This record gives sequence, C-alpha cells and structure tokens, in this order.
Amino acid sequence: MTDAKPRERLYLFDTTLRDGAQTNGVDFTVHDKRLIAAMLDDLGLDYVEGGYPGANPTDSDFFAVKPQLAHATFTAFGMTRRPGRSAANDPGLATLLAAKADAICFVAKASDYQVRVALETTNEENLASIRDSVAAAKANGREVLVDCEHFFDGYKSNPDYAIACARAAHQAGARWVVLCDTNGGTMPHEVEDIVRDVVRHIPGSHLGIHAHNDTEQAVANSLAAVRAGVRQIQGTLNGLGERCGNANLCSIIPTLKLKREFADAFDINISRDKLASLVHVSRALDNMLNRPSDRHAPYVGESAFVTKAGIHASAILKEPETYEHVPPEAVGNHRKVLVSDQAGRSNVLAELERLQVPFDRNDPKLNRLLDEMKEREAAGYSYETADASFDLLARRTLGRVPDYFRVEQFDVNVEQRYNALGKRVTVALAVVKVNVAGEMLISAAEGNGPVNALDVALRKDLGKYQKFIAGLKLVDYRVRILNGGTEAVTRVLIESEDETGQRWTTVGVSPNIIDASFEALMDSLVYKLVKSGAPA
Amino acid sequence: MTDAKPRERLYLFDTTLRDGAQTNGVDFTVHDKRLIAAMLDDLGLDYVEGGYPGANPTDSDFFAVKPQLAHATFTAFGMTRRPGRSAANDPGLATLLAAKADAICFVAKASDYQVRVALETTNEENLASIRDSVAAAKANGREVLVDCEHFFDGYKSNPDYAIACARAAHQAGARWVVLCDTNGGTMPHEVEDIVRDVVRHIPGSHLGIHAHNDTEQAVANSLAAVRAGVRQIQGTLNGLGERCGNANLCSIIPTLKLKREFADAFDINISRDKLASLVHVSRALDNMLNRPSDRHAPYVGESAFVTKAGIHASAILKEPETYEHVPPEAVGNHRKVLVSDQAGRSNVLAELERLQVPFDRNDPKLNRLLDEMKEREAAGYSYETADASFDLLARRTLGRVPDYFRVEQFDVNVEQRYNALGKRVTVALAVVKVNVAGEMLISAAEGNGPVNALDVALRKDLGKYQKFIAGLKLVDYRVRILNGGTEAVTRVLIESEDETGQRWTTVGVSPNIIDASFEALMDSLVYKLVKSGAPA
Repeated sequence: MTDAKPRERLYLFDTTLRDGAQTNGVDFTVHDKRLIAAMLDDLGLDYVEGGYPGANPTDSDFFAVKPQLAHATFTAFGMTRRPGRSAANDPGLATLLAAKADAICFVAKASDYQVRVALETTNEENLASIRDSVAAAKANGREVLVDCEHFFDGYKSNPDYAIACARAAHQAGARWVVLCDTNGGTMPHEVEDIVRDVVRHIPGSHLGIHAHNDTEQAVANSLAAVRAGVRQIQGTLNGLGERCGNANLCSIIPTLKLKREFADAFDINISRDKLASLVHVSRALDNMLNRPSDRHAPYVGESAFVTKAGIHASAILKEPETYEHVPPEAVGNHRKVLVSDQAGRSNVLAELERLQVPFDRNDPKLNRLLDEMKEREAAGYSYETADASFDLLARRTLGRVPDYFRVEQFDVNVEQRYNALGKRVTVALAVVKVNVAGEMLISAAEGNGPVNALDVALRKDLGKYQKFIAGLKLVDYRVRILNGGTEAVTRVLIESEDETGQRWTTVGVSPNIIDASFEALMDSLVYKLVKSGAPA
Repeated sequence: MTDAKPRERLYLFDTTLRDGAQTNGVDFTVHDKRLIAAMLDDLGLDYVEGGYPGANPTDSDFFAVKPQLAHATFTAFGMTRRPGRSAANDPGLATLLAAKADAICFVAKASDYQVRVALETTNEENLASIRDSVAAAKANGREVLVDCEHFFDGYKSNPDYAIACARAAHQAGARWVVLCDTNGGTMPHEVEDIVRDVVRHIPGSHLGIHAHNDTEQAVANSLAAVRAGVRQIQGTLNGLGERCGNANLCSIIPTLKLKREFADAFDINISRDKLASLVHVSRALDNMLNRPSDRHAPYVGESAFVTKAGIHASAILKEPETYEHVPPEAVGNHRKVLVSDQAGRSNVLAELERLQVPFDRNDPKLNRLLDEMKEREAAGYSYETADASFDLLARRTLGRVPDYFRVEQFDVNVEQRYNALGKRVTVALAVVKVNVAGEMLISAAEGNGPVNALDVALRKDLGKYQKFIAGLKLVDYRVRILNGGTEAVTRVLIESEDETGQRWTTVGVSPNIIDASFEALMDSLVYKLVKSGAPA
C-alpha cells in the first residue's frame, strides 16, 4: 500500500488536570496530578496542562517542581496581564512566568461582549494585553499558546474582533491559537464554517479547538474543526470538565486512530500499542477519583461492546463485524455477549493467562470458577480492579492455595474523648489472634484508625511467614457503598506494594466496613505469600 | 416578528421502551412500561415504541392492552417476514399484526453484506420480504415504519442496494423509512452526504434517522441528518440503549427547541411548558430504574449549569449569559456557583445566597470564611460536594450556630470470631455519652458496621432534640484516602435525607475513618437542627 498524500501531524493537548479539575466533585491532590501527568505522557499526549499556578495551593505546589515527562510539553495555564497593568508589573503574570513549565497557555477573551461585560475594558486594551503577555512569555523562553475564550460566540456577533484577537496572539508569536467554544452551545456545522474562515487569516497548523459538551456535541465539534483545518485538539480523559465536561479524548483518540478518513490523513503521537491501553487509562483515572466508570462510554465503557440476548447475538457470534464498528481489542476492551458462556469463559481464560495462573483448558473446575466469579461480582466484588483477589479466587477454585494461617479472632476498638486539657483525642486499638500451624499468636497494636490498627496487629507476628511480608505496605484504600438503602454493602479496595515496587489490588465486600477491610487485607497478605513462594 | 418561511414539522420517535430495553442492566416491567409511555405521551413525543411483541413475555403482555395515550402513536416493533415464508404464513409477523398498536415498525436489513452473512438469503428475497411485510401491515390498517438496519454501512459498500431497500419500503406504502446507523460508527459528515443522496430518491418528509452513540456522535449524527433533509428523529430518554446507547432525546429536544436555526426552521410537538419538565422526566426515568443520574448530562444533569472556576463565577453573577448557552430554567434546571479552593469571593457570596445564610457584604468575617474554607479544603474537606457542611462552617464563622449538645465520649467496638457452629460472626457495638444542656445521656447500639452502630447510638437519645431528628436517615456514605502514604487522611462524605425528602451532604476529614465519619454525622445532625429551627 502506498500513501499518495503524506499524513499531516495532529497534536493532542490534555487539560484533565486544569479544565478537568473544574468538574463538580473532582479534587486532585498534588500526588494525583503527578500520577496522571505521568500516565498522559506515557499514553503519548503532546501537551499536558497541569493547572493554574497561583490560583490555589495545590496548583502552586504542583508547579514548584517540574515533573519528569518523557515526551509531553508540560504546560501552565493562566490569565494575560490585567487591563491597565504593564506585563512587568502584574503579579498574576509574574507567578505564571515563575512556574516550572515548558509552555504557557494564556486565556484571553475573543468576544467584544465579554471584554465589555466580564473584563470591563476596551477592545484595544484587550488586544494589547494579549500581545504584551505573549511577548513576555516568549521573552521568558517559553512556548506560548493562547486559548481564545468565547471565540465562536464572539465571532457570531463580531467576526472582525474575534479574528483580531486570534491574529494578535499569532502575530505576537504564539505557537498555537486555540479557538474555544467556552459555553459549549455551538453546533458542528457552525464550527466548520467559522474555522474555514479563520484559516484564511491564520494557518491551520497554528490553530487548535477547545470544545465543551453542553449540547452533547463536543466530540463532533472537535472533529469538525479538524476537517476544516485546525491541527490541535484540546480535551480531557473521560470528558471531565465543568458543567457537561470537555471534549472526551477517550472518544476522540480511537476515532482519529481507527477511522479510515482520519487515520489516512493524520499522524498522532499515540501508537497502536498505547491505544490498546486506553481502557486501562480511563479506568485508572476513575479509580483515582473514586468515581464509578461510565459503563456506556464509547470505546472504553464496560458495555461498549456488549450485546444483549436477541437478534444481534447470533450474528455477532458468526462474524463480529456485523455489529461492531471497530474491534474492541484495539482500545483494550473486549466483546461480551451476555447470554453466552462462551464469551465469559474466553475472558476468564485470557485473564488467567495474563496473571500466569496455571490451568488446563479442559478442567471442569473452570466452569465452577466462572460461576463463582459471576455470583461474587453480582454481590459486589469487582475482580476487574482487584486482580490479586481474582488470582486467589482462581487458585483456590482450581485447588492450589495453602492455608498458611487462620485468624481465630480479632477485636478492634475506637474511643474518642476529651483529655485532661479539654482536647478531643481518639485511640484505635486492635487485637488479633492467629493460628500458625497450631501455634496461637496474639498481637495487639494501635493505629491512626481501625483498619490501620488491624493491619499493623495482623502483620506484627505471623511466625514463620513474617519474613515474607516484611516489605509489604498498604498504599491505597477505597470504599464504596453499593446498592444503597437497607441492603447496602460496603466494598473495600486495598492497594498494596512490596519491597520490589510491585503493586496489587484486593477486594472485600460486607455490610460491615471492618469485615470488608479485613477480607481485603487478608487477600493481600495471602497473595504476597503465594507470590513469594512461601511454604505451606 | 414575522416568519417569512413557514416552519416544517419535525417528528420525534421514542424507542426507550424497545431499543432502550437493550441497555445492559435495564429490565422494564410491564408496569414501568405503562408509566414511561404515559410520561412520553405527556411530554409530547409523536411516537412511542413500546417493545417487540412476541420476543419476550413482558412485551407480549404490554401489547395485549393498548395504553391510553392522548396524542402519541403507539408503535410495535418486529421483523419482516422470514426469507422463504409468505407474509400470511409467518408466525412472527402474525403475532406482530395481532399486537394492540397504532403503528408497526419493521426492522429490515439494508446492507448486502448483512443479507448474506446474518440473514443468509438473497438480495431480491430481502426486498420481497420488505414489500410483502409493509403491504400486510397496511392491509391490516396500520401506519407502517421501516427501520433500515445497517443503512449507512450498507450504503458505503453498495449504495444502490441500500437505496433499493429504502425505496422498496417507501413504494410499498411505509409512512416512514428510517435510516439506521446500527453499529454507530458513521461520522456526521458522512451521514449528511449520504442523506443528501437519499432525498433524491425519497422525500425527506418520509425519512427518519436512528443513530447510536459508539463514537459519541449520535446527537450530531441525528442533527446532521435533519439538516440534510430527514424529518423524523428516533432516540431514547437519557440515551438508553445497547452498548453506548441511542441518540439522547434529552439533549436533542432542547437543541431543537432553543437553538435559533432549528427553532426557526422546525415545529416539534413539545411546548415550552413541557420542555421545562425535561429535567423531571429524565430523573423520573433514572429513579424508576434505580440508576444514579448522570450529573454531567447536557441540559438535564445536576451539574449542567454549575460553575466552579473563580474567573467565570464573577462574570456569571454579573450577567448569566456570559457563561450559559441557554437559560437553565428553560429545561427545568437551575444555575449554581460552587465553592471550592478554585473559587473566589464571588462564588462564596453566591452560595451563601443560595443556601439562604444571612450575611452582610461588608462583614470582615467574610474574608475569614474564605481563608478558613481554603485552608480546610487544602486539608481535604470538599465543600463543593458537602453543601450542608459549608452552610454550617459559614454560620459558625459568621457566628450563628448554637451548641445544641456535646458528645463527651464515644466508644466503638468491632469483634469478629468463630461461633459455636464454626461460622465467622462479627458484632459492632457503639456507646455514646452526650451532654444535652447539662444532662448526661448514655446510649448504646449495635449496627451492621461501626459507623452504623455509632449513628444509631448517637441518634437514640438526644433529649429535647429527639423530635427534630426523628425522620433523618443516612442514604449514602463515601470514603476516600487523600495524599496517600504516611500522611494519609480519610475523607468521608455522608448524604442524609429527612422526612420531607430533602437531601444534604456533609464531610469529615481525619486520619481515623471513625473520627471522620463521626464529624460528618455530627454535621448532618446539627444541620438538620438548624434547618428545623430547633431552640438553642
């Protein structure tokens, strides 16, 4: 196959950590931001916008030390100089220029209505502010982007002024001028028509699109802008963002990579291999935010390739393309036909292979594992996340996990009262009685909470197994209530790490949060013993 | 104002009860179906597709008695006669013709690939089946629609055959020929180009569009088809449907009604008054299905008109249109400005107004509130979610919350052991000592977990305040660990509800999950006392 026309480079700009942080209910910590930036860099995003230094303590901390990114341009967001101030004498701009970032993305109004009502200044002063700010950041050695806020609404009421703002940014030396549909109300054909006009003034290779999802068309608007000439797309993972969210990169990336007309025309810096990690990336973000993943999300949702019993199921088993627009494996997802044991079974076998749990394809116990898993998932266990608990369930069902030890009893107590100085103090204490090969070991420990106390007491003395678990630590703990109401159960997910840096997740489910936590703790310990080859 | 050009009628076809029933996790009862059909009729939908009589017992029951609809055409879905059978001798078709419905919507393949692989018959026999089935239903006195399955994929590989299928339906007397993007992989501009070709063969006033959301463009595809000429849109409430769902009518209807170019060109049978009930309709469906509503859904989501960014908040308070593409009241939604460490003073003032916390704009304590809030958010509190805790923080900082009671001490114990039958049992027990106006009240309670036990014990006896909290219940409980590692703290969010159905959320933060839970429980109780006007 030959490509007559060379492919053009299309750049992807992620603003999960900035515009995505505007999502109602989302609060990133600095640690979250570091993990997400590394994940985006690894996926292949061209730009990672980290936040707005100076606007809040989290973002100021995050921009105090530049994260080590292999490829992505690390970007700080902020405002152009204020009306009436010089660039040299604007504290906000000074903070932005001091941020440890490769690039600076300014936000500037591109609508005369907004300049008058929100900014309360003149059109000319706004243009001067854009020019001065871009020049100051350029002089500071940064790559510069300008988000032209309200560009489309501004264009609709005064096209000359909207374009003047964009040109001011371009002429002052901005690498990218980004056209923003800030309020999210613009229709795809309007985007297309307006961009076709803008590219008569500024080359498309210097234009970007920033769309919001207020009419459920942010993806369509982004792709329409690319068809009309822009060469940068701004968006967020899982479409995080204020109100209805930003353009969803988890939908846009697979379309650019898998749909012929985009794949033939454009190069993006996401390899086929990385594309196959997209489901993982999308779910990792949700897990970090402790949000349930959208099962119906395009490409990455758990149900995106699920066919329910009926007229489609038999056709899809004959030939998957009959009901699939792309192969699910391309994005790391999988096909599922809800009535078919066949589909469930093949998923389980694939997972066993991935976890390196030995098995025999003809073992009738495999069906028992499948049933057991379905039953437990219906009760709240989530084996997709808790890979170590699935590993143990599989080994137990197929008959291979020793009873290393047995916890005969535990008791956890939390007491809060006022001390002699009138200050509230809380003490958490746990006692655990463990039977290791007939020997009863009783340990007690305090902790900063009941689960911590239980964890410390449990691991204080496991006799001959002690040496195998010495380097183990609990690195994350997440809780969700499932089903709600009177039948509510608690699901606890625990992430553990050992001395080699390996991490694994275990799950516990119970109406009682302590029982659920204990179950997940036990799985983590036993998993570690299995992995370490501890003797029975 | 005069309209030079008369508006064209655009029809809305709802398939929530048929294609929406294919959603993974959705199972309608006959009773659900009756309620939803009535709700859709009341909203003003032109067609309500109730299901597939003969395919399952629920749908057969539902079509045994025709629901009383004021306006909507009640529609039964089913297959055309099978290849090789006559229309008079096909049991499926006979069942469909016996259904109590005004209209029949047939599904027929419009792709030669599908005819060969899925149907295993000839192109000509497929055309004959379409003609025969339409004729049989017409002879039976029904209005007839034909869903041309896989139309767009079929057109792309063999346009002549796809159009031949559509024409066969039209010529046999179908009122509507519906072009389906069954696998959901078609792009909006492809839909537009293809529909522009189809309208050269069949008038747009007889064409419909049926889109799926597999690339997150079902809404854009539906609107592109309308721009190209079709005059019927098929979709579902909240975008229910197999895989990633169908075109979301809750997004399409407001756009058709509120966006100038559509509103000026088309009449739909949804009044302004009914449009203002859309949020209610959307949430009513979710409630019936016991699904959490999508907070970020366009137009109808709880966050669809919520602003968090400080720089946006001051403008939105000056003039809402600066950051709103449509007025939220038009769809029955409302504006909200969130408080969070991203926010400035103007967000806080707006939130105080919304919560009806009295304040004086010149009170210097307002700055203290802002500082306190930012500090506490940096420590892990999330006031944008926990509106009731913010309410209390504000009232306390501005000096207005009575010390109703004081918890002198509490003690929570969880014990797990084996009972006499060798079964693991867990008991959670809490003791709480409360000082109410000098009187010491001690209560103890068991619970299904430590937080539940604490909650029950705390609310067992609050003396003179007991009557104010009688109807209170805990409806959700969420936990996250923040910062990770050794400095980890636990954030607990508790959602409560009282006897009037009002809900509020409170937050607690501590290294100890029990302390954090207790703080959130206390805030919930105190908030309820403040709201009830309990005496100090």
